[in-house]
Amino acid sequence: MRVDINADVGESAGDDAGLMKAITSANVAAGFHAGSATTIRDTIRLAKAALVSVGVHPSFPDREGFGRREMHLTATEIEDLVGFQVSVVTDIARSDGVALQHVKPHGALYNMAARDADVAAAIARAVAAFDRALILMGPPRSEILQCGRAAGLRVAAEAFADRGYEADGSLMSRAKAGSVIHDPEVVAARALRMVRDHCVVAWDGTLVAIDAETICVHGDTPGAGRIAARLRGRLESAGVIVTPIGASQARTSS
Amino acid sequence: MRVDINADVGESAGDDAGLMKAITSANVAAGFHAGSATTIRDTIRLAKAALVSVGVHPSFPDREGFGRREMHLTATEIEDLVGFQVSVVTDIARSDGVALQHVKPHGALYNMAARDADVAAAIARAVAAFDRALILMGPPRSEILQCGRAAGLRVAAEAFADRGYEADGSLMSRAKAGSVIHDPEVVAARALRMVRDHCVVAWDGTLVAIDAETICVHGDTPGAGRIAARLRGRLESAGVIVTPIGASQARTSS
Amino acid sequence: MRVDINADVGESAGDDAGLMKAITSANVAAGFHAGSATTIRDTIRLAKAALVSVGVHPSFPDREGFGRREMHLTATEIEDLVGFQVSVVTDIARSDGVALQHVKPHGALYNMAARDADVAAAIARAVAAFDRALILMGPPRSEILQCGRAAGLRVAAEAFADRGYEADGSLMSRAKAGSVIHDPEVVAARALRMVRDHCVVAWDGTLVAIDAETICVHGDTPGAGRIAARLRGRLESAGVIVTPIGASQARTSS
Amino acid sequence: MRVDINADVGESAGDDAGLMKAITSANVAAGFHAGSATTIRDTIRLAKAALVSVGVHPSFPDREGFGRREMHLTATEIEDLVGFQVSVVTDIARSDGVALQHVKPHGALYNMAARDADVAAAIARAVAAFDRALILMGPPRSEILQCGRAAGLRVAAEAFADRGYEADGSLMSRAKAGSVIHDPEVVAARALRMVRDHCVVAWDGTLVAIDAETICVHGDTPGAGRIAARLRGRLESAGVIVTPIGASQARTSS
Repeated sequence: MRVDINADVGESAGDDAGLMKAITSANVAAGFHAGSATTIRDTIRLAKAALVSVGVHPSFPDREGFGRREMHLTATEIEDLVGFQVSVVTDIARSDGVALQHVKPHGALYNMAARDADVAAAIARAVAAFDRALILMGPPRSEILQCGRAAGLRVAAEAFADRGYEADGSLMSRAKAGSVIHDPEVVAARALRMVRDHCVVAWDGTLVAIDAETICVHGDTPGAGRIAARLRGRLESAGVIVTPIGASQARTSS
Repeated sequence: MRVDINADVGESAGDDAGLMKAITSANVAAGFHAGSATTIRDTIRLAKAALVSVGVHPSFPDREGFGRREMHLTATEIEDLVGFQVSVVTDIARSDGVALQHVKPHGALYNMAARDADVAAAIARAVAAFDRALILMGPPRSEILQCGRAAGLRVAAEAFADRGYEADGSLMSRAKAGSVIHDPEVVAARALRMVRDHCVVAWDGTLVAIDAETICVHGDTPGAGRIAARLRGRLESAGVIVTPIGASQARTSS
Repeated sequence: MRVDINADVGESAGDDAGLMKAITSANVAAGFHAGSATTIRDTIRLAKAALVSVGVHPSFPDREGFGRREMHLTATEIEDLVGFQVSVVTDIARSDGVALQHVKPHGALYNMAARDADVAAAIARAVAAFDRALILMGPPRSEILQCGRAAGLRVAAEAFADRGYEADGSLMSRAKAGSVIHDPEVVAARALRMVRDHCVVAWDGTLVAIDAETICVHGDTPGAGRIAARLRGRLESAGVIVTPIGASQARTSS
Repeated sequence: MRVDINADVGESAGDDAGLMKAITSANVAAGFHAGSATTIRDTIRLAKAALVSVGVHPSFPDREGFGRREMHLTATEIEDLVGFQVSVVTDIARSDGVALQHVKPHGALYNMAARDADVAAAIARAVAAFDRALILMGPPRSEILQCGRAAGLRVAAEAFADRGYEADGSLMSRAKAGSVIHDPEVVAARALRMVRDHCVVAWDGTLVAIDAETICVHGDTPGAGRIAARLRGRLESAGVIVTPIGASQARTSS
């Protein structure tokens, strides 16, 4: 059993340094919903020092809404803005001797990419055109994973240990009570069930099948570093190998 | 006699297509004072089709003020934001088979780079670290040209045919009457004096020595395309070879 | 026969001073798609000096896309952001002794308000809560006019003299050829037909009925001031009284 | 002995609800460095429910830098942007039946207003033109307090319980170690010395005289709510009356 633990970083919120001690993949904000050229560089250095693999976290251009509001752009605009963000984080990482591992869309772009084939295809095209070795992250059975595969990319299904689930396997809206889970023990237990038993209990009690290669923990919840550390500890105690998605896939494919 | 004609483009203002018929170098806005990933791509394609050389026009992050307001950032922040903008325009250009020729800072960043050695050095470091073949544009005898040379970069001194000059060789403030010249004949005549006679008449009548390898025409003045065409025609009629700064410097150095 | 002529101003694009000589109502950008506190003040003073009535031109927060991209916000967010923009322009105008006449949503917000009852109702609520004397502008037979009326506001139907129409009475997409008309004579002739004959010829030749109390001319097309002047001259020559929407409605209602 | 406790809120960072239980004055971000129309409204409602007095926290327009970078604007631009932010927060507050108590500039604008008479005068003019009953907050012996008084405004000197001080009474730069104090006990003890003994111990041991009517606690430090509660408890145990600056000044002046 292996799994990757990923978190959003470089958003000038939360405890990136604490998170880096526990995660294996870092999704770096590229200046569209949060961050700046300088936070990108600083965050990549933080990740490098902590031996955490680095990815891009591209977003709609919406600082005011933290990238959480859907915007209706043309496919070309989406392809261009994802390409822009992948390109710039890649270049900054390269200048510090770091090669990018993955791309994970942020917020509203992630949600639209999950269900809208045009958005998903535009993102996949941008990533594939830039670097075919990049891994695309998204929810299980989503358009983004399907389009990523079709574009010749490696993809990785993601589950959220600290988010509530609906009975249909979708995430609960943040507007609902119980949509974000704060108790480290509960989060860790859910992660273990996801990895070992390939399932999660929805808020209404339904047991939902889930197949994830990477577990997301949120960095902007209070005590995020502690939550991530607890989660990793629980997984490792149960014999799960926690390793970057790039590493685990490389072995799988050999 | 040779000279380059450059203009700021991709700012969603003015007649880029018209300008491209007359200029030899295009300074592409990188999304910090104007533009987006999509306008960068579209503008580079426009330049490529018109056989115009492409450069980056990095700016402070200030859309509201169109990059015309000085911001006090650390040297690291300036180095990072210039590197960010150079990197992203380079990558977008490369994906269309275009290699970048030059970097010309925009607005308040240009003005600070002219007189502030720390800002100038930060810009030069960012450019040199990214690609030593890039040419750095700036005003004659400025800190930015000096720092560019010190960083091992080729530099190009720039004059403004459509801007009024003070007796000390600096540009008149835009707040003063007569600071922007709209008459195409006057602009063309000033450009010719700059190239042939290496001088410009300041607003008070003083004859100011100026040594410029590239002449800037503004794209956001009404009739910019017509002004640029008239200027180029006048120069060529007088036997001046109008050619990209990259081309002319390459020959000079051989 | 009376009609109002309105234009978008304060967008740091186009010739506001020229436009002000010909229009009767000015839609002032409030800093969300373009403009700043200072451009709002300057534009209001320009309008006051030219005896042009002043309105607010609220937009989604999207400078990069000039407010032309649809964003999915909650009804509360839309109500709040429209209230914010109406409030600030009202206060700045008041400090110069100017009372606001109207509100006209911008770009993507205008388009969504035309067809989406939730968006339209949110805008109408924001305007009515702030000042019931404000007139709400929108396309004929649109949700925004209907919701405005339901909220107890005066509304004004708008037609576009310089835009092509579909056979169903909607505007042609800007992506289509012929969607923006540049010939001042054609624009003026269309405006006269709209006012005198209550119709417009769609691009395919269909005669479309249209009932408009205000005609919009765009300020960001080249020669906008000249187009507006020609249009006004043509209307007045034909005996049409060109007067602000506030003035004409006041008389109508007496 | 009386004192006000203020904190920056509505910045989508930190625990506003927790802070509101301990502070007496809330500085609401107005959308220029953080926040949106909706966060302004939500934050004002939170303050109202907690019986906390409300003020505006105007900033340079710099979301990327969180308003912490100095920008060089004209005095008119500063006056306009402060007026804009004061106006909009006032209107939103009024619609919820809340009258504004004070204005406290944010970040780089606060620092510039402390030492630059032109910036300070522009801010004071904007506030006085809008509402002479507003109280202006700033550091003791600063240009902003002097200009506020000259403009006929009530002013309130502010000290920072959780920030280190230089021997000359200025704040330590955030770049220095020890510039932000996290231990609630230390913060509370410093606050008590400020209020009871009118002094603070600088980082080098120097005892610095300080005369403050309001104590600032930062909301974006981890555990901010807890720190503020501890500070208030300590002050009240020592017999200090913790009360909004508006209330205390009203009594003083009677």
